[in-house]
Formats: sequence, structure tokens, C-alpha cells
Amino acid sequence: MSLRIAEIFGPTIQGEGALIGEPTVFVRAGGCDYRCNWCDSLHAVDSQYRHSWAPMSAEAVWAQVRQLSGDRPLTVSLSGGNPAIQDFGTLIAMGRAAGYRFACETQGSIARPWFGDLDTLVLSPKPPSSGENVDWAGFEACRKLGSGARQQVMKIVIFDEADYQWAREAHARYSDLPLYLQPGNSEVDPATPVDLHALADRLGWLTDKAMADGWFAPRILPQLHVLIWGNKRGV
Amino acid sequence: MSLRIAEIFGPTIQGEGALIGEPTVFVRAGGCDYRCNWCDSLHAVDSQYRHSWAPMSAEAVWAQVRQLSGDRPLTVSLSGGNPAIQDFGTLIAMGRAAGYRFACETQGSIARPWFGDLDTLVLSPKPPSSGENVDWAGFEACRKLGSGARQQVMKIVIFDEADYQWAREAHARYSDLPLYLQPGNSEVDPATPVDLHALADRLGWLTDKAMADGWFAPRILPQLHVLIWGNKRGV
Repeated sequence: MSLRIAEIFGPTIQGEGALIGEPTVFVRAGGCDYRCNWCDSLHAVDSQYRHSWAPMSAEAVWAQVRQLSGDRPLTVSLSGGNPAIQDFGTLIAMGRAAGYRFACETQGSIARPWFGDLDTLVLSPKPPSSGENVDWAGFEACRKLGSGARQQVMKIVIFDEADYQWAREAHARYSDLPLYLQPGNSEVDPATPVDLHALADRLGWLTDKAMADGWFAPRILPQLHVLIWGNKRGV
Repeated sequence: MSLRIAEIFGPTIQGEGALIGEPTVFVRAGGCDYRCNWCDSLHAVDSQYRHSWAPMSAEAVWAQVRQLSGDRPLTVSLSGGNPAIQDFGTLIAMGRAAGYRFACETQGSIARPWFGDLDTLVLSPKPPSSGENVDWAGFEACRKLGSGARQQVMKIVIFDEADYQWAREAHARYSDLPLYLQPGNSEVDPATPVDLHALADRLGWLTDKAMADGWFAPRILPQLHVLIWGNKRGV
């Protein structure tokens, strides 16, 4: 059974969240059950791009990861789209046998047995500004199947006050999950240069807000790949 | 016996290294056994600033940390200068009893028994561009006394090719220590606005270099506080 792959790229550093700064090869799955208003990866989400998603066997993906990494074990990040639509169990087994580590980034809407084989399961429930509604029963199922992972963390993107309040409630619900907050990036056009001062300002805004509230639980981080490369793809 | 304190500030996010993004109150000790060429904290290092270092008891420092954090436990970072010149054992004991966590950032030249009571010991040996010479026996003594800490990590600032090669050797020597690399910042004047594009370029340079070499061990991170606040003090 083949996988639908939007892109494989790297090694480069992970730009966000728990593994920020970590050298990583990215395997971006095509297809998503969500349509977030501010999606920055529509080329891996919208079915109008489906013709660009390569049907690949797990063996072919693994061969490309090995080639990109020069056979030196590193972290492989499964992203998307929602990688949980597909079965990455075979790829993970092959990679782990060779000493590679696996992370998966998913909204937590679809649970998969292979979550338990991950090193890092990043559950990223989408706040109100996304226009999506989180099904917490589905999220809970992801947590259960991911209980074998070395670590589970929660990451929430914050665009506005409503998102922030929502994140506080999500954290109250899952206070045992290490939480990472990330200011939203509404400049997602690869052709438009990123305004670094605006990026810095958004990080400062979110930091000041959480500190003023005495909310010290989350780590607050920017997207380093946007800082370095703007919204260019494949980096 | 009183401590000499250059500044206490926060809460704000930790801008660099293993705890990047973590809400933190900073206790900056006055005094240093090093004089790095590119020091970004001379006001806590050079004896010409000694008059500005407040003599404070551990109790007085602790009272200020409590007040700044609104009595909500968070991470306290002991920085400097070199905080290992002084005895922070009493402060750490008081804070830990109240649920606070402690990190200490030091070059690893002076070993202290209280290293073992830390949550995070950041050993930051200085590369050739600093103009200092690392005494690895002293570094080893820090590792030993810090063996009770929850985690020990190594952070190295990279200004140039020689620093980079030196970091590779330091990592070979201590491959068991999680390593964080950080591009150097030579714009350290608080009055000069930071060039964000230059900051992004330095991060990109270091990332590209390590990836091209297939060196996937270190995490590579910028200084977020410089991104948000430039070289302003007390943030």
C-alpha cells in the first residue's frame, strides 16, 4: 500500500516546538481532514494539489531519508497535512531499526497504533481562529495510542485573544502534557518576504501576555524556519 | 555572607539553549573570572561596574524572586558574570522548597557543590574567538559536582570557522552531553538597534554548515531575547 507524499526535505533544523533546533529530515504527507483558515501548508492539504503528491512505498521513502541524511541517524519528522491519515508504521520500523528517531506532528483528530512507536508525538489541537472544532474524544484516543511514545507534547498556535483563552482551557484539560505556544503567522505566501520585525513583535506580544497573567506553564517559541527562510518551501 | 547581584529581572522567556522559551526569572551575579572578547554582559563582568552590583543576602534575593513571580513557581536562571564565583546554595535550597526550579549558566571554570542541586546545569565553555583558554580539568570538576543535577548540557557560541571546529572537538570529548550551538552576536551595544536579517543570516549560516557536514548531534538555536528586545538589558 503506497503513501502519498507531498515532499521530503532536509536535513535542516526543526523550526518550532519541543524539538526546536534539532537536525531533522521532514516527510510531509499529502492530505488533511482539516482546512484551517490560516494553513501554511495548503500544498499538502488541499485536494487541488493532489496531483503533486507522489505515491511512494515506505521502502522508497526510507531510501530517500537515508540518502538525504547520508545514512547518519537523525530525527525524522512526519508532518503534513495530517500524517495520521496514512500508515507510517512500516517506515518507522525501518528507520528505528537503523537508529533514526521519529517525531509526528498531528492535530490529534485521528489515532494510529504507530503513535506508540514514536519518539515524540506532537499533538497540535487547533484554536478557534482556525475555523475547526476539536473533537476531544478523538484527541483522547490519540493520547492513548501514543502512550508508548517516548514523549507526548501539546503545541498550540495563537493568533488572538480568543485563541489564548482557548489554550489556557486546553492546558487545564491536559496539564500533564508539556505545552508549547507559538504565535500565528498570517503571512503564508511563499512569494512575499517575511517581515521579521512583525515576527519578533508577535513573539513579544505572546510572551508579555502570558507573563502578565502569571501563566508560566507553556514554553513560548517562534518559527525559526520562517525567521531564516521566510515562507519558502522545502527548507 | 552576601551575594553581589548585578540584576534580577523577569519573568520573561529564556532566550537561548536547552530551556529556550521557558518562563524564567533571571538572577545575574556580578563578577567573572573571564573577559571574553565579545562579552554581552560586561555590566556584570567588568570591575568598573562593581559599584552597581548590589550586596544582597540569599533571603533578599529570594524575596525578590517571589515578588517578581507572584509566588508562582517557575524556573530561576542563575547567570552572570560567572555565578560559580559565589555561593548560591542557600538561595537554591529556599527556592526548591517552594517548588521553584533552578538553572545555572557557567563557563565551567569553577566547580561548586550546589551544582548538584540544580535542575539544569548549562556548561558553556568558551571557543577561541573569546580569547580565553578552557581549563578542561576545571570543566571536569564541574561535571562531577553537577552529577546530581537533573540535566547537564553544553552550550557553545560560534562566531567563526575556528569556533566551529573547536565545538566539534569539544563535542567529541563530551559526546554524552546534549549540545546546543548558538551563532555569536557581535552587536552588543544596548543603544544600537539589532539587524534582524543579520541575526537570521547567522543562524542560517551555522545551520547550513552543520547540515552540510552531516553533523546532526547539536541543536542549533538563536537568541530569542535579541530577536524580541535587541540588546536591551533587563528583559
